[in-house]
Amino acid sequence: MDNMNLSKHISGQFNQELEHVRNMVLTMGGLVEKQLDDAIRAVHDRDTVLAEKVIDGDRQVNAMEVAIDEECTRIIAKRQPAASDLRLVIAIIKTIADLERIGDTAERIAKIAQGSFETQQMTLLVSLESMAHHVLKMVRDTLDAFARMDVDAALALHAEDVRVDREYESLFRELMTYMMEDPRSIPKVIEVMWAARALERIGDRCQNICEYIIYFVKGKDVRHIARADFENDIKG
Amino acid sequence: MDNMNLSKHISGQFNQELEHVRNMVLTMGGLVEKQLDDAIRAVHDRDTVLAEKVIDGDRQVNAMEVAIDEECTRIIAKRQPAASDLRLVIAIIKTIADLERIGDTAERIAKIAQGSFETQQMTLLVSLESMAHHVLKMVRDTLDAFARMDVDAALALHAEDVRVDREYESLFRELMTYMMEDPRSIPKVIEVMWAARALERIGDRCQNICEYIIYFVKGKDVRHIARADFENDIKG
Repeated sequence: MDNMNLSKHISGQFNQELEHVRNMVLTMGGLVEKQLDDAIRAVHDRDTVLAEKVIDGDRQVNAMEVAIDEECTRIIAKRQPAASDLRLVIAIIKTIADLERIGDTAERIAKIAQGSFETQQMTLLVSLESMAHHVLKMVRDTLDAFARMDVDAALALHAEDVRVDREYESLFRELMTYMMEDPRSIPKVIEVMWAARALERIGDRCQNICEYIIYFVKGKDVRHIARADFENDIKG
Repeated sequence: MDNMNLSKHISGQFNQELEHVRNMVLTMGGLVEKQLDDAIRAVHDRDTVLAEKVIDGDRQVNAMEVAIDEECTRIIAKRQPAASDLRLVIAIIKTIADLERIGDTAERIAKIAQGSFETQQMTLLVSLESMAHHVLKMVRDTLDAFARMDVDAALALHAEDVRVDREYESLFRELMTYMMEDPRSIPKVIEVMWAARALERIGDRCQNICEYIIYFVKGKDVRHIARADFENDIKG
């Protein structure tokens, strides 16, 4: 579905309320993206003030999730949407749950910026940041695909998750070696490991959102199905 | 809301379809509970065959999630539910997402049973099992509260999560000490740590489901609100 079709669809079939709630999701997505970006910068600059701002900002993310959920329920009750309108509302309800969890991860990463690390351990944070930047780009691209309801982009991102997984595995091995060589570092390294794990999970959440995009546009639930089994059906 | 009121509500306002989808959720819940129970037993008995069965069984959990989701969308489109009927459908859509993730955890725990542990390390598994049993009871009680849509039970379970968190923190410290004393054990201990973390997350998921019960019965979204701020409003 290209941009033009979507706009036509929105101005015709979809009503203003659907457009409004869709914009709320994009605003929430933008906020979550900023939270993650700020959290990464806080770790990089050891900026505890920025970290505090991220931790505080999570409340706003949570409040948006609740507001959008309420709006979706109201739309279903009042407008009784069917077909693709209903699929959009369901896709939104599921998407914001994943966005909220990505927000939680930003908070967790910000907390690392508040801890103290020895100079030696800083190399671990460099590897974490590199993975974080990759994941941040994935979040950006996912929100972009959501904004355009772009199935081809969703499919491409779905595959990108494999690369994030590989990056995680490589970082995981690095952290494991570090701990075995210097057991005193274990508590700090475990913290970095948690964050790496959380980043890897963000990749999964982006993948989920891509599945909701496919569900909305194609009316097909591709969760838990091997990619090879649905790719040819979906490609537009 | 006691049993009687719920039955009345179901036979009156609610139609057969809602009752059917509610039963599907309870069946899915029963399956997830069994998966977790089997996974714990597989670790206890070092039973790789049972572990394999759990890993295989996760597909069935996933399939049920997709089927229930479909049924909910169909009910919304066809029946255009409002008020508490709609809240039930929304609560179900959210509940099955959490149940599916609990199923994923069962699979992860089963994978531990497939690994080899030295006799010394077995003490770690004993602590993990004790936490697992606690969490399993919480899952059971949550499903029970869901079956009866029992707000008081949901509130009690919501508090129970604090105890699971404490158990996790104590196990976490134990695992950390173990690694620092015997760095060769790190890879195995990390595996147990992942599982402990996943169990702690199950507590959070039960808490989520309790919040959906409160949402359905009281029409109030209590997510992200401190318990003290909603408890008095809710207690029936």
